[in-house]
Amino acid sequence: MDYQKILNQVSQEFAGKPRSGKVASYIPELAKVSSQKYGMHLHDVNDNNYCFGDSNERFSIQSISKVFTLALAMKVVGDQLWNRVGVEPSGDPFNSLSQLENDSGIPRNPFINAGALVVADVLVSYFSNPKAALLTFLHEITGNTSIDYDPVVAASEKSEGYRNFAMVNYLKSFGNIENNVEEVLDFYFHQCSLSMSCRELANAFIIFANNGRVIGSEREFLTGRQVKRINALMQTCGFYDEAGEFSFEVGLPGKSGVGGGIVAVHPDRFAVAVWSPPLNPKGNSALGMASLERLTTLTGFSIF
Amino acid sequence: MDYQKILNQVSQEFAGKPRSGKVASYIPELAKVSSQKYGMHLHDVNDNNYCFGDSNERFSIQSISKVFTLALAMKVVGDQLWNRVGVEPSGDPFNSLSQLENDSGIPRNPFINAGALVVADVLVSYFSNPKAALLTFLHEITGNTSIDYDPVVAASEKSEGYRNFAMVNYLKSFGNIENNVEEVLDFYFHQCSLSMSCRELANAFIIFANNGRVIGSEREFLTGRQVKRINALMQTCGFYDEAGEFSFEVGLPGKSGVGGGIVAVHPDRFAVAVWSPPLNPKGNSALGMASLERLTTLTGFSIF
Amino acid sequence: MDYQKILNQVSQEFAGKPRSGKVASYIPELAKVSSQKYGMHLHDVNDNNYCFGDSNERFSIQSISKVFTLALAMKVVGDQLWNRVGVEPSGDPFNSLSQLENDSGIPRNPFINAGALVVADVLVSYFSNPKAALLTFLHEITGNTSIDYDPVVAASEKSEGYRNFAMVNYLKSFGNIENNVEEVLDFYFHQCSLSMSCRELANAFIIFANNGRVIGSEREFLTGRQVKRINALMQTCGFYDEAGEFSFEVGLPGKSGVGGGIVAVHPDRFAVAVWSPPLNPKGNSALGMASLERLTTLTGFSIF
Amino acid sequence: MDYQKILNQVSQEFAGKPRSGKVASYIPELAKVSSQKYGMHLHDVNDNNYCFGDSNERFSIQSISKVFTLALAMKVVGDQLWNRVGVEPSGDPFNSLSQLENDSGIPRNPFINAGALVVADVLVSYFSNPKAALLTFLHEITGNTSIDYDPVVAASEKSEGYRNFAMVNYLKSFGNIENNVEEVLDFYFHQCSLSMSCRELANAFIIFANNGRVIGSEREFLTGRQVKRINALMQTCGFYDEAGEFSFEVGLPGKSGVGGGIVAVHPDRFAVAVWSPPLNPKGNSALGMASLERLTTLTGFSIF
Repeated sequence: MDYQKILNQVSQEFAGKPRSGKVASYIPELAKVSSQKYGMHLHDVNDNNYCFGDSNERFSIQSISKVFTLALAMKVVGDQLWNRVGVEPSGDPFNSLSQLENDSGIPRNPFINAGALVVADVLVSYFSNPKAALLTFLHEITGNTSIDYDPVVAASEKSEGYRNFAMVNYLKSFGNIENNVEEVLDFYFHQCSLSMSCRELANAFIIFANNGRVIGSEREFLTGRQVKRINALMQTCGFYDEAGEFSFEVGLPGKSGVGGGIVAVHPDRFAVAVWSPPLNPKGNSALGMASLERLTTLTGFSIF
Repeated sequence: MDYQKILNQVSQEFAGKPRSGKVASYIPELAKVSSQKYGMHLHDVNDNNYCFGDSNERFSIQSISKVFTLALAMKVVGDQLWNRVGVEPSGDPFNSLSQLENDSGIPRNPFINAGALVVADVLVSYFSNPKAALLTFLHEITGNTSIDYDPVVAASEKSEGYRNFAMVNYLKSFGNIENNVEEVLDFYFHQCSLSMSCRELANAFIIFANNGRVIGSEREFLTGRQVKRINALMQTCGFYDEAGEFSFEVGLPGKSGVGGGIVAVHPDRFAVAVWSPPLNPKGNSALGMASLERLTTLTGFSIF
Repeated sequence: MDYQKILNQVSQEFAGKPRSGKVASYIPELAKVSSQKYGMHLHDVNDNNYCFGDSNERFSIQSISKVFTLALAMKVVGDQLWNRVGVEPSGDPFNSLSQLENDSGIPRNPFINAGALVVADVLVSYFSNPKAALLTFLHEITGNTSIDYDPVVAASEKSEGYRNFAMVNYLKSFGNIENNVEEVLDFYFHQCSLSMSCRELANAFIIFANNGRVIGSEREFLTGRQVKRINALMQTCGFYDEAGEFSFEVGLPGKSGVGGGIVAVHPDRFAVAVWSPPLNPKGNSALGMASLERLTTLTGFSIF
Repeated sequence: MDYQKILNQVSQEFAGKPRSGKVASYIPELAKVSSQKYGMHLHDVNDNNYCFGDSNERFSIQSISKVFTLALAMKVVGDQLWNRVGVEPSGDPFNSLSQLENDSGIPRNPFINAGALVVADVLVSYFSNPKAALLTFLHEITGNTSIDYDPVVAASEKSEGYRNFAMVNYLKSFGNIENNVEEVLDFYFHQCSLSMSCRELANAFIIFANNGRVIGSEREFLTGRQVKRINALMQTCGFYDEAGEFSFEVGLPGKSGVGGGIVAVHPDRFAVAVWSPPLNPKGNSALGMASLERLTTLTGFSIF
């Protein structure tokens, strides 16, 4: 399969077309990113790389970070994690509090905000320096030690994060947060502020396409069973209340972030990241979804 | 892959083990089925058949029929269908009415009861004799003209179907049912009463593994795009509020019914049906799920 | 207190003022009533009558009938009634189904539609001819045997009553309806179609201001305890999700109907009925509420 | 009316009877109060006082304080308050967050926690020292300058107040909190910690029975219209999801607290406070409700 040719075709199809959607604006750092940014990077399990556009420019990965923290939490605490967070789609927008009320403080899955906050709490409990531990994990799976948090974004998230403050306090009232509220949120706002390029994201996600291993290494970061669960969760819950639409249109497990990034995985084939800031009404990158739909249609590689 | 050997192993692993779960009892016809029934049938895209146990005995397929009516509705009305029913997981139990209230009468997906009733209404509008049309469709894709409704089950469903009567009337109050309430329910109760064996189900579902075609025929019952959507819907919504668990444990698109049947599909490989009446608390066959989990683990064939 | 002088003042204050709100239009019989109709009748416990405007013209009393059926049901089955319906405000619009889902089919109070349907079922179970029994009750408490159902309105309600069909079937699925769905709804649609004037309503409601007795008679239709409960229920639940506003603005127990009627009671003083068809966004007569607010302000007679 | 004779009778009826219900235990200060405490005090508009039992012992008034803060907020900002909080029963337990989600951050009424927190924010905005201002208000209406906060209770509330932290942050995310979260909660936890006896409560609440005035004074603390609204709110919303039951059983506007206190008002007649710590399942003093029911039955003084 000539991936580069296909990426070129995707790029040409959308070049010069007007962008629909709106760039996230709840913090100034996201609002000021150009709506014209557009890039894509595909990394296959033979360690080849294909790309176009702004694929080497870093952006705020936001909720895509939830996949990394989930992976790290599964690695360190194993199946105990599922006592504190579920594995089912929520059917509600990503920041809903009302479901928690009926579910006694157990979030439906690790990709809605409530679930990601519980995962953050798990890491804060486990590591003496969770922010350093997450960076180390990312540096190891990518071989790239320059990946880092954006402190300005993290501070901005905190200053506007009343709903996340509400969520952690609410979870804590159910006994599902072990640590100090401020500590958990400090970690969470930092993970959301991670700054990575499409190339870096595709390289990091290859472990989910390669049975938990970095290409060319025998080191197993995650077991096959763990990778399968993460991919299943991305498939059913990775796109808030647009998971079904993404499953149909793209047909790959994936995860989006309000910074306009989307990463998707084809088990045993490739990981691919795309970036375009304007979001559709459900909060997912409009051009990102369209580009991935073209990719799976042109390659014929969907999992369905 | 020696599927028969693997099926034999699955059969042996569970033989003689006590059955957990409870046989559905809301109608007498389901309650009186033996909890010991157990069979499995795998049909691959090379037209080979593998099986064990009670795989040739017919049972009430119940909600598995929703996949057939969805396929038939997509075939006859195309993408118009999505104006009347969504494609997202509901996050609520299968018979919930409250979501409809917020969603102006548009069911979240075609596999919750509300969605299946809208699909039934579409078929009642399109066909002068929808019950005959559904049988014809099943006879054509299986080559088996003896597949039929069970009139006793259909009558029983009707006599206890207050919640479905509520649902159709409620949908009609939003304008999302075109036909007479009784007509729609008569069709719906009949589709649920379809009596099929594991063999027949696996043979019927092969079109979802084979790009919409019966094995060995050029006739396209469904387009590749339609099959992809149906498989994506089974993956995200086929198991009520246990879709995430099934995605992880089994990792295949599938659909269950309260009669104890489950059918799953591995695109480009096979369709497989299993039957064991006792249901877990979420309403899915307990042993059926366990058997499929073993199958994908032993074959290594999950889509994730 | 010179009630007639005060009624005259209310009438003059609103005469010629433009009417805000919209006449109910879900059935043609309500839609064609003139929005200019306006009348009021006050009946005090000394058997004096005061009125203005269209107070002798009959209109469709709709949900006001729920007070009569509640009174009759309490009279015939006593406190058993509270096993099947609650006494708390619902906090939801009058036709909500979702609350029933959480409350196992026990409606929050007898004045939301679900509750009134359960009360209707109680009467259908108790009386061989419930429609005749309700008329007899009304004829006895008013001494007016010409009060009757409007068959055209009843038939219209039925033809558009999908949501009520949904509700009764849903209640029956929880076991909280004993009779045939059609029979219960036939009774319910008839009670809603009752045609009464402000004078007739004020005369009928005097039993709630006079400890359960008709003026000048020793016959106790209801006990003092029953009257107290009915008044308390009107106070907390008589105006859907505007009960709090009515309690404040008017400060009397009362009940409204979508026909534009409102009846209110001042225990030990009077019953008063007002009619003006245009409804505010919450479904209560806009001018009716304003008129009652003026009445209690000018008389100084609120219960608070 | 010989109120003392009636209070004596109430006292005797319940003396020695076993106490049903459970003393609140979410903070240690409440848990250690004896379940045998029992007292009642009635203050009439002729300035007479009647009492029995532990009526002079102070206890934690908890949510009863919401009536004082509401009164003070209405006094200082007037009808603007209703832009930020509603006047309708919530139909949900007192600490529900899900309703806020649908109502864009406007709490249903000032007596659920969310509403009381908005009222607290109003006072924090208006007064430079809101804690002192609330005490001054209480000292003025009671003539008793020893009424004070209990700092141990306030600190305890804070240490367990995750749900209230969640609520204020959530309200702030909707823009319905103007001040710093910590400041608002500091005030709120203090108001809940107010320590008052039945006598002091009945004396304070007499302004709601006496048109906004202290007995024997011309000074109007609240207008008649404001008093009417406060009483109407107590009637419809003063007892969480037991408001309907209290309206029926007692038939007076009132407010309860988890410390076991209840205060009720008969406009133009009296204010009465009762204290007994064990709570019924809805969170209201079981013996307190029973005692008030006997009072209104024996006096015949309910507002219905």
